[in-house]
Amino acid sequence: MPASCDLLLINATVLTMDEAFTIRRNGAVAVTGDSIAGVGDARQWQATESIDCGRRVVMPGLVNAHTHAAMALLRGLADDLRLDVWLMGYMMPVEREFVSPEFVRLGTKLGCAEMIRSGITCFADMYYFEESVAEATAEAGLRALCAQTVLRFPAPDAASYEDGLARARDFIQRWRGHPLIVPAPAPHAPYTCTPEILRACAELAAEFDVPLHIHLSETLLEAEESRRVNGMPVIPWVKKQGLFGAKVLAAHCVHVDDGEMRALKNFGAGIAHNPTSNLKLGAGIAPVARMRELGLNVGIGTDGAASNNDLDMFEETRLAALLAKGIGGDPTAIPAREALAMATRVGACALHLGHLTGSLEAGKRADLIVLDLDRLHNVPAFARDPAGIYAQIVYAAKSTDVVDVMCNGRWLMRDRVLLTLDESALRGAACGQAAAIDAFLGSREVSVLQKLVAIGGAVEQESFEVQVKARVPSAAQVVAVIESDRMTVIRASRYHQFDKYWSFDDPAQGRLRFREEELLDDHGAITAARGRLTLTGDTREDRFGAVLLSRSRYLAPAAHSARFYREYFRPATERVVEKDRRRWLVAYRGVEFYVHLDRLMDPASDGYFLEVKSRTWSRRDARDKAAVITELLALFGASPDDTISDGYVDLAAGLAARRTGE
Amino acid sequence: MPASCDLLLINATVLTMDEAFTIRRNGAVAVTGDSIAGVGDARQWQATESIDCGRRVVMPGLVNAHTHAAMALLRGLADDLRLDVWLMGYMMPVEREFVSPEFVRLGTKLGCAEMIRSGITCFADMYYFEESVAEATAEAGLRALCAQTVLRFPAPDAASYEDGLARARDFIQRWRGHPLIVPAPAPHAPYTCTPEILRACAELAAEFDVPLHIHLSETLLEAEESRRVNGMPVIPWVKKQGLFGAKVLAAHCVHVDDGEMRALKNFGAGIAHNPTSNLKLGAGIAPVARMRELGLNVGIGTDGAASNNDLDMFEETRLAALLAKGIGGDPTAIPAREALAMATRVGACALHLGHLTGSLEAGKRADLIVLDLDRLHNVPAFARDPAGIYAQIVYAAKSTDVVDVMCNGRWLMRDRVLLTLDESALRGAACGQAAAIDAFLGSREVSVLQKLVAIGGAVEQESFEVQVKARVPSAAQVVAVIESDRMTVIRASRYHQFDKYWSFDDPAQGRLRFREEELLDDHGAITAARGRLTLTGDTREDRFGAVLLSRSRYLAPAAHSARFYREYFRPATERVVEKDRRRWLVAYRGVEFYVHLDRLMDPASDGYFLEVKSRTWSRRDARDKAAVITELLALFGASPDDTISDGYVDLAAGLAARRTGE
Repeated sequence: MPASCDLLLINATVLTMDEAFTIRRNGAVAVTGDSIAGVGDARQWQATESIDCGRRVVMPGLVNAHTHAAMALLRGLADDLRLDVWLMGYMMPVEREFVSPEFVRLGTKLGCAEMIRSGITCFADMYYFEESVAEATAEAGLRALCAQTVLRFPAPDAASYEDGLARARDFIQRWRGHPLIVPAPAPHAPYTCTPEILRACAELAAEFDVPLHIHLSETLLEAEESRRVNGMPVIPWVKKQGLFGAKVLAAHCVHVDDGEMRALKNFGAGIAHNPTSNLKLGAGIAPVARMRELGLNVGIGTDGAASNNDLDMFEETRLAALLAKGIGGDPTAIPAREALAMATRVGACALHLGHLTGSLEAGKRADLIVLDLDRLHNVPAFARDPAGIYAQIVYAAKSTDVVDVMCNGRWLMRDRVLLTLDESALRGAACGQAAAIDAFLGSREVSVLQKLVAIGGAVEQESFEVQVKARVPSAAQVVAVIESDRMTVIRASRYHQFDKYWSFDDPAQGRLRFREEELLDDHGAITAARGRLTLTGDTREDRFGAVLLSRSRYLAPAAHSARFYREYFRPATERVVEKDRRRWLVAYRGVEFYVHLDRLMDPASDGYFLEVKSRTWSRRDARDKAAVITELLALFGASPDDTISDGYVDLAAGLAARRTGE
Repeated sequence: MPASCDLLLINATVLTMDEAFTIRRNGAVAVTGDSIAGVGDARQWQATESIDCGRRVVMPGLVNAHTHAAMALLRGLADDLRLDVWLMGYMMPVEREFVSPEFVRLGTKLGCAEMIRSGITCFADMYYFEESVAEATAEAGLRALCAQTVLRFPAPDAASYEDGLARARDFIQRWRGHPLIVPAPAPHAPYTCTPEILRACAELAAEFDVPLHIHLSETLLEAEESRRVNGMPVIPWVKKQGLFGAKVLAAHCVHVDDGEMRALKNFGAGIAHNPTSNLKLGAGIAPVARMRELGLNVGIGTDGAASNNDLDMFEETRLAALLAKGIGGDPTAIPAREALAMATRVGACALHLGHLTGSLEAGKRADLIVLDLDRLHNVPAFARDPAGIYAQIVYAAKSTDVVDVMCNGRWLMRDRVLLTLDESALRGAACGQAAAIDAFLGSREVSVLQKLVAIGGAVEQESFEVQVKARVPSAAQVVAVIESDRMTVIRASRYHQFDKYWSFDDPAQGRLRFREEELLDDHGAITAARGRLTLTGDTREDRFGAVLLSRSRYLAPAAHSARFYREYFRPATERVVEKDRRRWLVAYRGVEFYVHLDRLMDPASDGYFLEVKSRTWSRRDARDKAAVITELLALFGASPDDTISDGYVDLAAGLAARRTGE
C-alpha cells in the first residue's frame, strides 16, 4: 500500500546527490511537512498534492558555504583594488558609517533574493548584527548558519571584543533550536583576533554545540606573518589557541600546506572554498583537489557580493571545477559530479549541517530545486555517460535555469517568481542606500584630507613651527657646538629616513609626505622603525628673515605600506628623498629647539644640511624664536646666505634634474 | 540642423568602448543602413524610427575571438578527460563519423542562437566544411571570421592536405567581400600541420588579404615538443615557416615566453585567450596581463562548446579578468574596463576586423547589444567611480541580461526573442543528432575491441601461433645451439620490454597488452623504441603436448602513452611485466621459428625463460610445427616438465604474490 505524503514531485530526473550518487530517471520526491519522506517511484506514494516536473531535474538546493549576505548592498562599491585598499580604504570606512540593523536586514534580504534565484537553499554567513541576518533569512525562508563576528578592534556592532563576545553569546542563546537558523560565533580571522578571542569563541561554540565560522589562511601575507610572528603556520597556531575544540567552518584556506590540511581533516573542520573572491582579490587558489584527496569536507562559497560580485553558486561551482584542473594541469581533477557534491552534500557537511540538508534522502529537510535544462545553452544532452548530467549542470547550466526552489518544505520560488520577498521594493531600497553611500564617499573624495580622515586611525592635529634650513660647511662644527656648554642636550637620536612626497593635480589639496624611518643606535644598527603621514599646505604662513613660519595640517601614524597609500590616494607625482638624520632636542636660552643634521643619500648631495625648528603658538612667540634661531645658525657656522627656503623635496627635485641633465 | 538617420536608440547609457572609453549617459546611438551614423545627443538626429532604451546600457556586441561554433552539437559529449583521451578518444572518432555539411550547418545555427543570446555579434570560427558555417552564420545574421581547417592528415572534409588547401582557396574566393563573413584559412596547429601547409596557408591568406586562424602553443607538451623536435619554441618556428606573412589570429598562446610575446606583437598577430577551455583541458593559463602590457591585441574566446561547455562571453570575460588577478597575485591586473575592451574592441582588432566592429563609433558597422542591469544580481549600482559600470557588467551581469542584439544594422534579438533562428526546431534537431551519436558511441563501448577500433590508426589482424614456454637451466646452452650449424639465424635482436596487461570486469572482453619496447644494440644501448597494443582472448584454441595453439585477435601500433590507454579503456586490473629479451628468427628443418630467451626483471625471477613460436594457418600445420617445437625444446636443454602454460602475466602475478607473501 502506498505511504502518504503531503506533496509528491513526479516525472522528474532526480539527482539525490547521496553518497552513492543515485539518479532516478522518471522519479518522484515525496515531501511531508518540512522533510523529505522519500525518493523513488511515484507509485510508492499517496499524495495530498502532486506536481508534474515535466522531466525537469530535481536536486538538492545548493549550499553556499561562505558569504556575507548583507554585503550585497556593497556590490560594485570598489573593484580591481588590492585587498588592503579595498578593505581598509573602502569596505571598512563605509561599514563603520552605514552598517546598522536596518542596513543588515535590507542587505540580507537582497542577498537572499539573489541566492534563491540562483538555487541556494542554505548558506553560511558571517557579519555584524547577525541577529538581523537571522531574522531576514528566516523571513526569506532560507536555511543558514549565521555567525556573529567577533574582532579585537571596535566593530559596527561592538565597541570592544567583550561586547562582541557578549553579543555572540546572546545571539546563540536566543536562536538555537530555530528550524532554519543555526547560530554560531565568528572570530573574524587569526590576525584580527587575539588568542583570547579565539579561545573564548571556541569555548562558546562548544558550550552550545554550534559550529564556529572563521576566515583562515586567506592570503600569503597572513600565512607568512603567522610563521614570522607566531613561529608556526596558521593552522597549528589556531589549534594551539584551542580553536578545534569547536566544529570549525574555515573559509578560504588558500595557503595551507599538506600538514595543515591533514590537521584540518583530523580536527573535523569543514572548508569553504571561495574561488571567485580568492582570484578577484589576488589571494591565490586553494589546493582543493588535494583537500578532497585527503577526505576534507570542502564546500563552495561565493564570499560576499562586494568581492565576487554576485551570489551565483552555478558560476562558483563551475569555477571550482575548472580551477582545480587548470592549476594542476590535470583535466580529470574535480570532475563535475564531485564539484556538484561539493556544492550540495559535502558543503552541508562542511557547515556541520550534513544531517539536515545537502542531499535528497528520506529524513533530511526538504531543501530542493527544480532546473530547466531545455534552454539552448544546455542542448543537446548525451545519454552515453550517466555522469553527463552533472557535467551539463556544472559546465553549461546557469543560475537562471533554476525554476523552482523549496526550503524546509516551503516553496520560495515557483516558475521564477519569488514568493517570500518583494524584489521591486528591495531594488528601490537598495538604490536609496547606494545613493547615500555614494554621497558619503563623494564628500570624502573631494579632498586628500577627507580621504585621510576616512581611513581612520588618526586624529587631525594642526601645529605651527618656526624653522630654518641651511647648508653647513662642516658636520663637526655643528656637533661641537651642540656638545659644548652653550646649550643643553635633552635628547639625541639618529634616523635613516625614507620619504615619499606626493602631490596632486589640484595643488590646493596640499602635499602628502609618507615617511618611513629607522631609529639607529650609536653603531648604526636599527633599533626601531615607524611610518608617518603628514599633510601640508603649499603656503607659508609668514617669514622672519630666513626663518619660516609653517603649518603642518595633519599628522597620522602610517600603518600601511607606501603602495597602499599610493593606490588609495592616487597622487599625480611622487618624489623620493632618503637621508641620514642626526637629531637633538636642545635647550638654548631657555627655549627648546630641534636641531637636525642631515646628509642627503637619494638624491645624493655633498655636504650637510642643518635644520633648526621649534613649535610655536603665536606670531609674537614665532618672531622671538626666529631671532634666537638666527643666532643659533651663526653659532653652527652657517651664514644667512646659506639658508634654503625650499623643502627637501624641491631641493631633491633640483638635484635630480641637474644630475640627469633635465 | 539635425542629421537624418534610419534608427535612433535614445535614453541609453552608451558605452562606446572606443579608445577613450567614452560613456554617454542619457545618450543616443544613430544607425543608418548597416552602420553607426554617430553616438551622442538625441537632438543631433532626425530619425525614421526611434527606440527608447529606458536608460538601459547600449554597448558594442561582444566578439568571441575563438570558437568552433558547430561543436555546440558535441556539448557535454565527454568531460573531465585528459586532452588526448578527449580529443582522440571521443571528439575525433565522432567527428570522423558524423561531421557533414548538414551537421555543420545545424551545429553552427545552434551555436549562433546561443551566441546571440549571450550578446555576441562577431566570432572567429575554425572548423570543417567552413562554407556551411559561413552559410548558417550569414542566415543567422552574425558577423564571423570563418576559417577553413587544413590538416596534414585526412579530415572529415578533405582526404588529404592538398584537398583541404584547395577547399580553403575555393571557400575564400567565393566568400570574400561578403557583408558578414570574412573567409580565412586555418592551418589547425603546428603539430598537426607540416611546414609546407603552414607556408601554403600563409601565402593563401596573403594572396587574398584575409586573416589566418591557427591554434598556437596551447599545451606545455606542444611547447616542449617544439623545442625538442624543432630546436626552438613554437612562435619562432612558425615564423620560420613564413606564417607571419599573413595577418595571424593565434588561439591560446598559453605557453609562450616573453620573447615569443614580443615577436607576436612585432608581427601584428592577434591573440585569442580561451580561459575556460584552457582550464578545463588542463592546458594552463595564458600570460594575458603581460601580453596586454606589451600591447598585444588579446581577444577573449569561448573555444568550442565541447570544451567549455557553453558559448557565454559574459562568463568568459569575467574569468579572464579574475584569472589574471589570481595567478599574478595582483587584484589590479586586467581591471573590468580592460577585460570588457578585450571582449569588444581589442578582440575585434585581434581578429583583424577592428575597422568593422568592436566599438560604437561613427562609420563602424552597427553591431550592438542592449543590457538590462536592473535584475537583483546587478543591484545596487554606485555612481562614485565612472568605471563602476564596467565592473558591474564584467563581475555581476550575466548573459541572460542581454535583451536586444543588432548586427550589421539588423535586429537579431528583441526582448529576448530570437528573430532569425527557430530555437524549438534547433533543439529538436540537435537532440536527434545527439541520439545518433549516443547510439554510435554506445555500440563501440560494448567491447574493448570496438573501442580499440574506434580510436583508429590500426587494422584488425588475426593471427594464430603455436608456441611453448619453458624454464631453461642455462642461457649459454640456448645461445650455443642457436649459433651452431643445426639451424640458420635469419635475424637476431635484443629488447628491453615493458608490458602492461590490462583485464576487464567482463573476462569475455579479453586481455589488452600494452608493450613499450626498446631495441638494444650489442652494447645494450637503445637504438629504437616502439609501442604496441595486443588484444587477446582468454581461451586457447588447442594444445599439442606442451605446445599451445593461440590466437592474437588484434594488433595495433600504440602511438599514445600508457596513461592515455588506461584512461580510455578503464581496465579493472593492471599487471606490469618487465623483461630483457634476446630474440632470434631461425630456420630449422625448413620452418621459421622465433626463439625468445627472456630474463624477467619485474617481478624479478632467477633463471631464464625460453619461448619458441611460429605462425600457423591450419590445425594440421600447427600439429606439424608443434612436433618440431618439442624437438627444439629438447635441443635447448629444456625438458617437457619445465614447460609453463601460463603467460608471463600470470607467472608474474604468481611471483609477485610469493614475494609479498600474499
